[in-house]
Amino acid sequence: MTLVSEMLETYPADLGDIDRRKLADCIRECYACAQTCTACADACLSEDDVASLTKCVRSNLDCADICFATGQMLSRHTGYDANLTRAMLEACAMACKSCGDICAEHDHMAHCAKCAQECRSCEQACRELLNSLG
Amino acid sequence: MTLVSEMLETYPADLGDIDRRKLADCIRECYACAQTCTACADACLSEDDVASLTKCVRSNLDCADICFATGQMLSRHTGYDANLTRAMLEACAMACKSCGDICAEHDHMAHCAKCAQECRSCEQACRELLNSLG
Amino acid sequence: MTLVSEMLETYPADLGDIDRRKLADCIRECYACAQTCTACADACLSEDDVASLTKCVRSNLDCADICFATGQMLSRHTGYDANLTRAMLEACAMACKSCGDICAEHDHMAHCAKCAQECRSCEQACRELLNSLG
Amino acid sequence: MTLVSEMLETYPADLGDIDRRKLADCIRECYACAQTCTACADACLSEDDVASLTKCVRSNLDCADICFATGQMLSRHTGYDANLTRAMLEACAMACKSCGDICAEHDHMAHCAKCAQECRSCEQACRELLNSLG
Repeated sequence: MTLVSEMLETYPADLGDIDRRKLADCIRECYACAQTCTACADACLSEDDVASLTKCVRSNLDCADICFATGQMLSRHTGYDANLTRAMLEACAMACKSCGDICAEHDHMAHCAKCAQECRSCEQACRELLNSLG
Repeated sequence: MTLVSEMLETYPADLGDIDRRKLADCIRECYACAQTCTACADACLSEDDVASLTKCVRSNLDCADICFATGQMLSRHTGYDANLTRAMLEACAMACKSCGDICAEHDHMAHCAKCAQECRSCEQACRELLNSLG
Repeated sequence: MTLVSEMLETYPADLGDIDRRKLADCIRECYACAQTCTACADACLSEDDVASLTKCVRSNLDCADICFATGQMLSRHTGYDANLTRAMLEACAMACKSCGDICAEHDHMAHCAKCAQECRSCEQACRELLNSLG
Repeated sequence: MTLVSEMLETYPADLGDIDRRKLADCIRECYACAQTCTACADACLSEDDVASLTKCVRSNLDCADICFATGQMLSRHTGYDANLTRAMLEACAMACKSCGDICAEHDHMAHCAKCAQECRSCEQACRELLNSLG
């Protein structure tokens, strides 16, 4: 069991009927995607052809900020706000979709290929958690 | 003219037909609300009656994270993504509404009264920018 | 009186003998510098000559992250940790010095000129607060 | 091989003579510690005895902000600044030491016990990377 799941198990109050596996997966993906997008933005900056990658860098930066904010919010359970959780999961899935699409356009660069893949994973984890919220 | 507006004026490419005053106002409010919510969460922690304020702290922390991510995104113009901007402005307005409502419930504490006020300002700035995006 | 100072005045417990004006100035500068550096990084991405600005973008991104973390920490007063405050103020002053120097190298671009100026202001505010901590 | 290490391998320019294993470990620990501290702060808020845990919450929040900023900085390699890297690693190790000590004081709560452990891991990873930088 990973650290995210372990911390979830230590929460002293009621977590409600949220799907814990999907929640833990989504938290993990949010932090992983924030790191991957930050690294991809920087890798793009070191490409000779950086001038053709500026939209990719920008998309990476947005996605990192939104994934981090979403991961933070999902790590909190006290005073849970279902509507806000849904709105952020929608925004996060959208950021991941957008960044994943842009990175996939130039997946001949290994960092963009990896990043596209991670964005897809995070988007899917957000959508699965969203769907499970009912 | 403030620093946020000044930086907006230095952007070397086309900003499109976005309302610059509303954009600058919204950016300013997002950072101000992030700071205010962070300070309010901490002030709640120092109240004797912190046990009755835990939902407020949590709401402050979410609102700070979301306002910061939104402020960061709005500070970027390269490769503008209108749908993602709208989704984050909606989430941010919702976070501010929620946090403002909770803080307003105990506005006998000066930090919550101020924070409720700032959350209303930021919510309004998000909604005005949203409406101007068409 | 600004919002940052107003929130400081609402803190319900003892702030100790910290210089409140210098603390409020430094908090304000940290958030302002985070925003300015984020905007400067994005403006660099939209310059034709972005390939010569990649170190500037990276420095802007680091400076924004560190200024934000410092601003957040300075907005909290509960359980104040003087040594950690000093270490972060040192790191933040260093990030601002470094980013200000890099931006100043190409201050023919208005965003870098403004950003260099804001980095100097934030560096100075960090150093003045540091010196006042004794 | 984990995603952090995989992204490190895709960096298109020279990483210099940095110890890649220690760098990847430290990046991983920074994001993991940010998540764990965010979750621990929230778990503290849901304890009946939250009034005795306010310093712990504050320390968790600082540690999360600093770990995240450090993880972001370490994920960038373009225009590497050794002095700034050292200063942030020192601040991060100090934040982790401080938060780990406070959490360890009440490790009868499972979230604080886990969090103390993760803070120790992150502190050690920061120190090992620091020492390897020469």
